[in-house]
Amino acid sequence: MNLISSHSNPKIKLARLLRQRKYRQETGLALVEGIHHVGQAVEAAATPEARLVIITIFYSPDLLTSEYATGLIEQQSQLGVPCLATSRSVFENIADKENPQGILAIVRPQQPSLAQLSAANFPWGVALVAAQDPGNIGTILRTIDAVSASGLLLLDGCADPYHPSSVRASMGVIFWYPVIQTSFAEFAGWSEQNGYHLYGTSAHGSTDYRQISRYPRPLILLLGSEREGLSDAHIARCQGVIRLPMRGRVSSLNLAVAAGVLLYEMMAR
Amino acid sequence: MNLISSHSNPKIKLARLLRQRKYRQETGLALVEGIHHVGQAVEAAATPEARLVIITIFYSPDLLTSEYATGLIEQQSQLGVPCLATSRSVFENIADKENPQGILAIVRPQQPSLAQLSAANFPWGVALVAAQDPGNIGTILRTIDAVSASGLLLLDGCADPYHPSSVRASMGVIFWYPVIQTSFAEFAGWSEQNGYHLYGTSAHGSTDYRQISRYPRPLILLLGSEREGLSDAHIARCQGVIRLPMRGRVSSLNLAVAAGVLLYEMMAR
Repeated sequence: MNLISSHSNPKIKLARLLRQRKYRQETGLALVEGIHHVGQAVEAAATPEARLVIITIFYSPDLLTSEYATGLIEQQSQLGVPCLATSRSVFENIADKENPQGILAIVRPQQPSLAQLSAANFPWGVALVAAQDPGNIGTILRTIDAVSASGLLLLDGCADPYHPSSVRASMGVIFWYPVIQTSFAEFAGWSEQNGYHLYGTSAHGSTDYRQISRYPRPLILLLGSEREGLSDAHIARCQGVIRLPMRGRVSSLNLAVAAGVLLYEMMAR
Repeated sequence: MNLISSHSNPKIKLARLLRQRKYRQETGLALVEGIHHVGQAVEAAATPEARLVIITIFYSPDLLTSEYATGLIEQQSQLGVPCLATSRSVFENIADKENPQGILAIVRPQQPSLAQLSAANFPWGVALVAAQDPGNIGTILRTIDAVSASGLLLLDGCADPYHPSSVRASMGVIFWYPVIQTSFAEFAGWSEQNGYHLYGTSAHGSTDYRQISRYPRPLILLLGSEREGLSDAHIARCQGVIRLPMRGRVSSLNLAVAAGVLLYEMMAR
């Protein structure tokens, strides 16, 4: 077997650069790491609904002992995906984590543009403004799947949904659902054109979220950043401004928890 | 000003050892780091409801530039709390984070025993079995505050609620609420003796959580670990077994999101 053992191999260099968000954005590529997540990506990529293509798989035979994972590599090789064996040292150099499991994929997310979404194919979803924690983004994707909502819109400089913490928290949901990064201005125009009902959240919202007897579709739940919430300008675009009762000392919930409570309520109404 | 510049100073050694859970358990002490969290701990400690005492504050004058924080140190010194200035190098050695803010406190959590809790002072709360993610534990505490529940019981080897990720996610709630670590067996005896209604969650639960018209008090929401959920033995102790509808590919929610959805429902009923 030919092992890539040079740290300056161009493919290794690319994988290393993709650790940085800047290069992910420039190239439209992302990394997926670890047996479980590469497995989820491969499973998704085999279906017509997939939101990604597998470009290259790297693995370190020294590190990778799982039979499931070696089977995955064999199968992907047969399907024509380049599966490149590397030395342990090269693998550790491109891996994000300490104690890497020895498998990593470069993938190309395939996401629609905002213009391709409408009430017909995106009846309800979540839009986040400037959310900073990739774990929250992934966790909200996991809940979007649970309530069978349509997808996630990331507005005005949210954290990268392909950050390893987001991919992990999403349990692979990111490989299946529309996740679109755009500006609030573009979003506001699109949602108006397509007749969406926007529900924003605010500690000062006029209506308790349970007082809404029906959340009409098409529907977007709009949530602000962890630190600042929504601005008055965001709120001004909403048809409804709802609040979660807060009975304690702390004035807000964790963003993913707030999204969860509201999405479960919206699912039921 | 006398700066501690020796890494082998016994107080510095203690602070460093408290990074390890083993020493936190042996000594009954914990660490709180950063301006915001030390501020929350100090604020809580000044009240009769506080669940902690401030033992020592360490700070690095080189690193600590915030006026709020220097005011905090002055005030605590006047109250008799030892506030020890250290060299930058010593501080970086005891700090958990890269780029530390330059302030850290050793605190003694003051938690009741399980036997001290009853329906009168603990009408409803959450019990977690073997939850492994300290971020989830802190996030659930933050939600417990939001719904004005009574506190958190950590059963059978949960992660440390005083882990920095938990303290951070709790937004300081851990300094105010009962957080008790015990075994499932002890918990089961206590809850039966005190007439608690236990509601467990399971993907195979017989009842949708919204079908319960009233969650009677005293009430405990029992949740299993992130990976394994509740066992049959846990479920057997519950008066009710509820499920959250799961309409997607993934079979469960993030633990803190599941707790959030259920606690908001329980608050309302």
